[in-house]
Amino acid sequence: MQDEKGILIVLSGPAGVGKGTVCNALREKNTGIEYSVSATTREPRAGEKDGVNYFFKTKLEFEKMIEDNRLLEWAKYVNNYYGTPIDPVLDTVNNGKDIILEIEVQGAKKVKERYPEGIFIFLMPPSLSELRTRITERGTETQDLINERMTVAQEELEMMEYYDYVVENDQVEYAVDRIRSIVTAEHCKRERLVEKYKQIVEVE
Amino acid sequence: MQDEKGILIVLSGPAGVGKGTVCNALREKNTGIEYSVSATTREPRAGEKDGVNYFFKTKLEFEKMIEDNRLLEWAKYVNNYYGTPIDPVLDTVNNGKDIILEIEVQGAKKVKERYPEGIFIFLMPPSLSELRTRITERGTETQDLINERMTVAQEELEMMEYYDYVVENDQVEYAVDRIRSIVTAEHCKRERLVEKYKQIVEVE
Repeated sequence: MQDEKGILIVLSGPAGVGKGTVCNALREKNTGIEYSVSATTREPRAGEKDGVNYFFKTKLEFEKMIEDNRLLEWAKYVNNYYGTPIDPVLDTVNNGKDIILEIEVQGAKKVKERYPEGIFIFLMPPSLSELRTRITERGTETQDLINERMTVAQEELEMMEYYDYVVENDQVEYAVDRIRSIVTAEHCKRERLVEKYKQIVEVE
Repeated sequence: MQDEKGILIVLSGPAGVGKGTVCNALREKNTGIEYSVSATTREPRAGEKDGVNYFFKTKLEFEKMIEDNRLLEWAKYVNNYYGTPIDPVLDTVNNGKDIILEIEVQGAKKVKERYPEGIFIFLMPPSLSELRTRITERGTETQDLINERMTVAQEELEMMEYYDYVVENDQVEYAVDRIRSIVTAEHCKRERLVEKYKQIVEVE
């Protein structure tokens, strides 16, 4: 009898929204969620451990992984490759454990193409709800400032298109609680549980 | 600018699963979720208050509500009507508050037809996961007992069809936590938030 599969959780959002901070705070909660480790061709820095901070690869090894389609997504910055190896992710979910991947918006889009059954969470800066407050409290802001924020808000709204959930990062604690709730709720989805129990009933 | 709409949460499940206990435990948490009050034509019992335990109605009043389509669902037991008035539910969600409706499976099905945008949670007895354990620990149970439990499990699986989520009532505390998580997660759904923020951006 097969166990319930784990969930790949992709946490993304605009630069500077605090993805890393939220991810670390989540990790400190010992939720049992695993954390995806990226692969890179850059040199390890002092104290960095292979398989913990990164999987350190040679260029040749990395290009072989690209060729073999063993990366959920990858990109080249300056002269180095960075990417997400697919094997540890699949191993984790196939073992019934959840795994979280913290990644920028372009990478998340690629992961979505390759692994659409993941849960995509967009971490949102409080700019949109702040905008709401600013508009409501008219007179305290110039129209120019509101227009500027409106443009940013439009861009953020467009980025959200591929995501299942939007979590406002108003306070790290709240954001972490919302992410945990999303993961719990996803495990309670009917399709997931019916699948699990049908196996019990039909196996007999 | 319109506020985000609240969610109608329908909590149902087989007789005896503990819907009332879970609902009361949730209520004690002061989550801010409102509770739907049923209407009935039966006589108030000692201590029961109109609008708190039930909305007490005459037969004529109740039949007028049926006629006017002002009930989310209703049924007649013995000589009395029982039902869920739609107005308090709509008022609550339109005011941006969530409301929970605890109801048996047939009633939930009717609510689903009338208000499909509700969140339907099936509270599941631990029978299915117990069955799983019993099958795994072969030899401790007779085949007859397993077959009997298998039949119950099949029936439960069929009941789940209309639901969005399945929450196992293994322990009341856990069930309550899962339900709270589901409500939090639903409020983070992209469609919900994009709608909310599009209003801000487009109003300007």
